[in-house]
Amino acid sequence: MGNSCSCQIINSRYRQIVRLPSNWLLPALQTNRRHYSSQEHQQPKSIVLKTPKGTKDYSDREMAIRAKVFDTITRIFKKHGAVTIDTPVFELTEILAGKYGEDSKLIYDLADQGGESCSLRYDLTVPFARFVAMNGKEYQNIKRYHIGKVYRRDQPAMTKGRLREFYQCDFDIAGTYDPMIPDAEVLRILCEALTALQIGPYTIKINHRKILDGIFEVCEVPQADIRSISSAVDKLDKLPWDEVKREMVEERGLSTSVADSIGEYVKLQGGKELLDLLSKDQGIINNKTAMQGLADMRLLYDYLEVLDVQDKLRLDLSLARGLDYYTGVIYEAITPASTEGGVGSVAAGGRYDDLVGMFAGRNKKGQPSMKVPCVGVSLGVERIFSILAAHQKGQQVKSKETEVLIIAVGRDLIKEQMRLAKDLWDNNIKASFMFKNKPKLEKQWAMCEKDQIPFAVIIGQDELDAKQVRLKDMRIKDKAQGGGIMLQRADLVKELKTRLKDF
Amino acid sequence: MGNSCSCQIINSRYRQIVRLPSNWLLPALQTNRRHYSSQEHQQPKSIVLKTPKGTKDYSDREMAIRAKVFDTITRIFKKHGAVTIDTPVFELTEILAGKYGEDSKLIYDLADQGGESCSLRYDLTVPFARFVAMNGKEYQNIKRYHIGKVYRRDQPAMTKGRLREFYQCDFDIAGTYDPMIPDAEVLRILCEALTALQIGPYTIKINHRKILDGIFEVCEVPQADIRSISSAVDKLDKLPWDEVKREMVEERGLSTSVADSIGEYVKLQGGKELLDLLSKDQGIINNKTAMQGLADMRLLYDYLEVLDVQDKLRLDLSLARGLDYYTGVIYEAITPASTEGGVGSVAAGGRYDDLVGMFAGRNKKGQPSMKVPCVGVSLGVERIFSILAAHQKGQQVKSKETEVLIIAVGRDLIKEQMRLAKDLWDNNIKASFMFKNKPKLEKQWAMCEKDQIPFAVIIGQDELDAKQVRLKDMRIKDKAQGGGIMLQRADLVKELKTRLKDF
Repeated sequence: MGNSCSCQIINSRYRQIVRLPSNWLLPALQTNRRHYSSQEHQQPKSIVLKTPKGTKDYSDREMAIRAKVFDTITRIFKKHGAVTIDTPVFELTEILAGKYGEDSKLIYDLADQGGESCSLRYDLTVPFARFVAMNGKEYQNIKRYHIGKVYRRDQPAMTKGRLREFYQCDFDIAGTYDPMIPDAEVLRILCEALTALQIGPYTIKINHRKILDGIFEVCEVPQADIRSISSAVDKLDKLPWDEVKREMVEERGLSTSVADSIGEYVKLQGGKELLDLLSKDQGIINNKTAMQGLADMRLLYDYLEVLDVQDKLRLDLSLARGLDYYTGVIYEAITPASTEGGVGSVAAGGRYDDLVGMFAGRNKKGQPSMKVPCVGVSLGVERIFSILAAHQKGQQVKSKETEVLIIAVGRDLIKEQMRLAKDLWDNNIKASFMFKNKPKLEKQWAMCEKDQIPFAVIIGQDELDAKQVRLKDMRIKDKAQGGGIMLQRADLVKELKTRLKDF
Repeated sequence: MGNSCSCQIINSRYRQIVRLPSNWLLPALQTNRRHYSSQEHQQPKSIVLKTPKGTKDYSDREMAIRAKVFDTITRIFKKHGAVTIDTPVFELTEILAGKYGEDSKLIYDLADQGGESCSLRYDLTVPFARFVAMNGKEYQNIKRYHIGKVYRRDQPAMTKGRLREFYQCDFDIAGTYDPMIPDAEVLRILCEALTALQIGPYTIKINHRKILDGIFEVCEVPQADIRSISSAVDKLDKLPWDEVKREMVEERGLSTSVADSIGEYVKLQGGKELLDLLSKDQGIINNKTAMQGLADMRLLYDYLEVLDVQDKLRLDLSLARGLDYYTGVIYEAITPASTEGGVGSVAAGGRYDDLVGMFAGRNKKGQPSMKVPCVGVSLGVERIFSILAAHQKGQQVKSKETEVLIIAVGRDLIKEQMRLAKDLWDNNIKASFMFKNKPKLEKQWAMCEKDQIPFAVIIGQDELDAKQVRLKDMRIKDKAQGGGIMLQRADLVKELKTRLKDF
């Protein structure tokens, strides 16, 4: 290459290309060359300064919003008696295999560098089931929450909050209990969380795998096609019935009459009264599976009425949920797309009674050696961040908690500033100072302003000689305050503590 | 294989091998088979139920300890005006290349599944430098902390807290400031954190890359061998001098006389007085690099005296730190190995003035187009967990925050329990109840006991008819309390709020 004496660094943010001399590596690195592996010797000719596709950095302001979201959610999870556990970011590949249906192709694998075959976790549910199966008796009953990152090699849509690395906030109840009681509490928790997060109006679509499977049986869908047809039905939130029908018939090989009879059912939406309607349907009455699902839903609605969240729910017979592991009630929380920043689904979950058993092995009779029924919900907080960030647009987000800036008037007072800072730190007061021997006064005021620091403590040689300090409340714009009040140095901590208490 | 009709599930915790029929997959999965990729068809014959090598799950009790550690550290970081940012768990591979010297072989790579070449982050420092370089002006001055997991394919030693996936808590100050002022604050923060964590006695070994490099120059170590000899010197905390000398001479090709003169220097340890001693050394006096390092250290010690942490530090000329990117002061906090659970190094860090510049490209004169000096520290909290877990051994760790258990006397009161729970939840009281229609009384009391729930609210048909509840303080073992006090149902929330305030 004619250009071999230079290489490029591309800064993706500024779309700026910098030409470099071929010896651009720092001296420290050059002297070190002989320790590099051969791979490192071949430094790439250009470094693209970016995060991997579908991932992003979170700035301090975004983190402030995120911390608020996590605090709100965690508070509610704890209110409902949950503990938290943590699992590794990657699992043995075989643990994840066969759990995600068609989406398994989105799993990230680690490179084979010798040793075990591992993959990044795709959700927090499968690792939780693995944890319960592994820990035997001790965790057969647990309410746990887990906030952690999960990974999917999906096509990213950053503005909609669809990323390849994203957080999920999961709450699950594992254990053998009486029907629909934990299910009702999970839905109550979901409503509490979405209300507390102030994301605006939302609806929880709800359905039951057994009702859906029963409908497919009633409509005489071949057993082997049920999941495939189920996936098609699930698209009804995005596509009109005609297109879904076309897919069922043309792509998935269903007869038109079967598709039409499915259509009669899955177009149904409504409240509790829809359960009554279904109970009068001759097809449903004769289908055991569907009747079990209906009985579950009646009981659930009774409980949800007591828990005062039934008005948030909408029975939607087209809701199917793609994942293989659901066995009972399924739900999905959505925000109206018309809302500013509204982005569709913000949470989803359901009952999965067989997943732990899949890990636990089988006894001599061929039954799972352990059966731990589970129900849970996962909040997709990236979408919630998007909504909240849209709400907060233009508002200033405070990311720093500094309470006091120690301002020096004059030069070489750095040790005095440190001495003062030490006293404040010892008393748990959040204090900072500028790291300069000759700090400019206007720059120190500007720092106060920029970081929204409420108090300034000012020292100069006069104050030091008199063992005094000046204290100024930066929130008061009144000029009468002047340079602030004069205090005995020895009284500063007490005075600040009093003022910060009211803060 | 004769055994083809069965496969095995190995539960690693119980070392239990379960023989499975070949059709052990659940029916739901079997009907679904045709949707699986060919890879999934080939279900492994045995599933080992474990986390990947060098990783672990954290139980609710371990998480309670972890939360306390993170809260303590975060509180101190925020006291010092830090904000937090987050970066992805994996970076483009080229971002990490050439930063970790000999340890680069420990980096985890993601599999090539099309697209970019990515690796799991090895520390939080390099991603931070990449972030600063990428975000230009906005972050040229920042105090940031970051608590996150990092990944190293090292030989794990679980009992010592050495894992392949582990948390680091980093605090760094980026920006151009007057010498040693931010360095002093970082060391103050480290001391505040280690003291607040109550891990027992600790010492911070400190050295300066320029003093070390100066010594190597004085002893006439060839320039190209400096990092290699530096790595050998770094082993002096584990090996006696004779062995380190042997390695220098026999493996790294140094002459005996050069090794001996290095030995005279690197065996030196002490307090501030050691700086005076070095200032009188004829070799050092004539070496510009070493004299710069000495001047830095004098200034640092002045500041550390003001900040009242100088007694925690010990100057140790053998401290070298393996990483390539350090350019100035370096330090490492250690706990005495004799302490119960003591495990050596618990934190480390130093100044790295050139790392951001390595990402920022070069200007026409060949200088880095951006220079953002940095100094920071990383706390290795897994080791701190090990120490604290050893301290807490035998003590009961409370991981659940439930304040009230709603106990039913008699059957079919579940909706009444829910109604009561709803009222308490609406008032932010942490309430639970057993998910049973016919809960056994003794099991409900046992749940109170096991989860250390302080209050029990008891309802039976009599109480319901009278619109009353019974309230029992479970912390009082006095039998005089009997079945608890009787309250009007309408007064329960107020009464509980009063009692929980004093809790």
